[in-house]
Amino acid sequence: MRLSSYFLSVLKETPAEAQIVSHRLMLRAGMVRQCGSGIYSWLPLGLRILKKIENIIREEQNRAGAIELLMPTVQNADLWRESGRYDGYGAEMLRFKDRHDRDMLYGPTNEEMITDIFRKSVTSYRQLPLNLYHIQWKFRDEIRPRFGVMRGREFLMKDGYSFDLSKEAAELTYRKTALAYLKTFARMGLTAVPTKADTGPIGGDMSHEFLILAETGESAIYFDKSFTEDTDFSDFPVNYADAEEVKKYYDKFTGMYAVTDEKYVESEFHAAVPPKKRAQGRGIEVGHIFYFGTKYSAAMGAEIALKDGSVIPAEMGSYGIGVSRLVAAIIEANHDEKGVIWPKTVAPFHAVLMNLRPGAKETDELCETLYAQFTAAGIEVLYDDSEERPGAKFARAELIGFPYQAVIGPKGAEKKMIELKNRKTGETHELSPEDCVTFLRKELDIYHLPQAFS
Amino acid sequence: MRLSSYFLSVLKETPAEAQIVSHRLMLRAGMVRQCGSGIYSWLPLGLRILKKIENIIREEQNRAGAIELLMPTVQNADLWRESGRYDGYGAEMLRFKDRHDRDMLYGPTNEEMITDIFRKSVTSYRQLPLNLYHIQWKFRDEIRPRFGVMRGREFLMKDGYSFDLSKEAAELTYRKTALAYLKTFARMGLTAVPTKADTGPIGGDMSHEFLILAETGESAIYFDKSFTEDTDFSDFPVNYADAEEVKKYYDKFTGMYAVTDEKYVESEFHAAVPPKKRAQGRGIEVGHIFYFGTKYSAAMGAEIALKDGSVIPAEMGSYGIGVSRLVAAIIEANHDEKGVIWPKTVAPFHAVLMNLRPGAKETDELCETLYAQFTAAGIEVLYDDSEERPGAKFARAELIGFPYQAVIGPKGAEKKMIELKNRKTGETHELSPEDCVTFLRKELDIYHLPQAFS
Repeated sequence: MRLSSYFLSVLKETPAEAQIVSHRLMLRAGMVRQCGSGIYSWLPLGLRILKKIENIIREEQNRAGAIELLMPTVQNADLWRESGRYDGYGAEMLRFKDRHDRDMLYGPTNEEMITDIFRKSVTSYRQLPLNLYHIQWKFRDEIRPRFGVMRGREFLMKDGYSFDLSKEAAELTYRKTALAYLKTFARMGLTAVPTKADTGPIGGDMSHEFLILAETGESAIYFDKSFTEDTDFSDFPVNYADAEEVKKYYDKFTGMYAVTDEKYVESEFHAAVPPKKRAQGRGIEVGHIFYFGTKYSAAMGAEIALKDGSVIPAEMGSYGIGVSRLVAAIIEANHDEKGVIWPKTVAPFHAVLMNLRPGAKETDELCETLYAQFTAAGIEVLYDDSEERPGAKFARAELIGFPYQAVIGPKGAEKKMIELKNRKTGETHELSPEDCVTFLRKELDIYHLPQAFS
Repeated sequence: MRLSSYFLSVLKETPAEAQIVSHRLMLRAGMVRQCGSGIYSWLPLGLRILKKIENIIREEQNRAGAIELLMPTVQNADLWRESGRYDGYGAEMLRFKDRHDRDMLYGPTNEEMITDIFRKSVTSYRQLPLNLYHIQWKFRDEIRPRFGVMRGREFLMKDGYSFDLSKEAAELTYRKTALAYLKTFARMGLTAVPTKADTGPIGGDMSHEFLILAETGESAIYFDKSFTEDTDFSDFPVNYADAEEVKKYYDKFTGMYAVTDEKYVESEFHAAVPPKKRAQGRGIEVGHIFYFGTKYSAAMGAEIALKDGSVIPAEMGSYGIGVSRLVAAIIEANHDEKGVIWPKTVAPFHAVLMNLRPGAKETDELCETLYAQFTAAGIEVLYDDSEERPGAKFARAELIGFPYQAVIGPKGAEKKMIELKNRKTGETHELSPEDCVTFLRKELDIYHLPQAFS
């Protein structure tokens, strides 16, 4: 993509309303634009990031056996009356009437709706287990939306719902999902720590929150350093078809001590973790999983006929990831004073190509060559073909946070050499166009190239 | 995907409420499930189709130079007061108040919001032209929603908005978009006829509707048969960078006579089209494009500084495709008494693999071999590994409308041969697994394999 034909809206000044670094950087780099209190438009740059995050989540859900569908944003109030949550949900639920005066709402979550779909579609034990998810916009009418997309009102969420025949089977699904979440966050360059959590208004018996470590996190977290020191979540070779292997990894990862301040008891921490392994930090919640048994299935009559003819309510769990929130959370965990440092898998572009002397034959030609080669090789590149001075181009590149900067100036162009800089390490290499492509293809060992932006 | 681990909800009986064939087939095949009046969930099968349509639209928009962003579903009423449309829009606009008693609405369209984004981001002629689109859910509170997703309340739409410096430049963008639309619909196996249209509440000077021909269409259409007889819209070699070439093709395709009954005048039809070329049919509106000049930019102060320092409001157009409606429209145009006949590019799966004797060693083994080979070759296959009788499997395959049926029965399995049937033509071939893969890869000359379902 050439910058001259792209829509990039970088702000010179830091907006006064932004209190946290991710909000500031998202506004300044032109990833989002506020459209109302807690409501944002995703500008082209931000949308690319959002879609990459969405696709990683989707791939790991599918790998773990979950199936994607899509429920609407608007729901009938009646379903929520059936489960008993309509009156209790409070002012965060955006309620309205349609033109026929029916009570409707903008879905803040979908336990009721999925249970309704399930009870109308599934009647036999043969159709289970089922784990269904969707990635859809939600609305929660926060009284004081703040911190940009970190705590917005309209937000994108992946929410999944599982149906099993027994508690044991439901626990297996719960464990698989926990592992899929760890892998999902690891692929985004994040260390996510699963902490035992309360089930709150969703209800249920078992729950974990996933917090990613970031200095600016909303919660204090006390944990075993083994999470960050000895564990590579991206690489564990889980075979989801093997219940024992799933249990082994689940026990390993959830067995390590980790709690937020809400549940922290010093004596327990000290008993569980040897002094050298004790760590304290701050975390941002990016996922939350629940096993809640038959709470909704019993209330709403989502029942299954077993082989012996008896009928039981399905055992259910639900599983959420804050998709739009993750964009901000990744920035909180990956930035410096100049801007964002995107992990390669979620960067809006893999590289920026900077022409330091646009209009000069040598630099223009080398840039065009490299642009064509990058594109052909599947390297997503934004070609900064603007006529601004080099300082402005570098500042913008650092602000946006492309993992790689390919810089072409007059001296390099004479030798047909490119200076390739790694945004995170600051390392630079002088490379020929061919070597530059080869080097990046190796470095960008990403899971797939999104087709949406081809 | 194995049917035994998929969520497919086929209905045995035709739901009484479904009046048109696409609604009946979408409910029966388990593509959608109603969640409220005019509000649907997209079950896994339907979502795959929706995503494929979305991706074709996205690719053709990007090819024509449009840039994707994503605006929220909820809007502030104030923006609509600025443009003067808030009071006039009528009861179809879903209005509500948030917890702070602010007037909000669920966006039925986005002219105001995009104009607001534009005026806050773009100030100089150097940043134009810009053509921005999003693919987002909309809500229109129809008084009598009917015909399934054909006329639903919550629906998915691609809406694009262009900003140009002059009327001439805006017309070029309008023409490019018209051509991109023709190509988009052609890739879905549809013949879309552009008809001159009224601009209605959007306002403006120039407008075309795109109707696809289907016997069950809502509008009568009178047109020059050259559209259907002499023209291949999928293949025209338009170079969007060449304004003259764009004009040439635009004039060719919009120059042929085509009007809906609203604008039909017999004498004009007879004067424009020789008797042999006169055709009459019915059409379903799937796209609508508008050039409306400065209607919104002037009202909302979306102004551009020119090179000479003068300031002018941007010249605008807007362009819509009914994404969810297209699923129904494609079915209206492609079905028989047994079910849907999906065009290859939008089919939920390319093929169904039917094991006619599950449990028998030979058929099971050959099915597993072929399933692995299909998957490795990028052929999207649903493996019907159920224990139902062959008749039920065939009926379901015809209902869902997979373009190809790969059938493995005991006799074929003995010879290691597969019977491959083309759903549309009824043609069958007996093929070895290797030849079957080679044959399908050639037949499925599709533009890309969606990664979302890998």
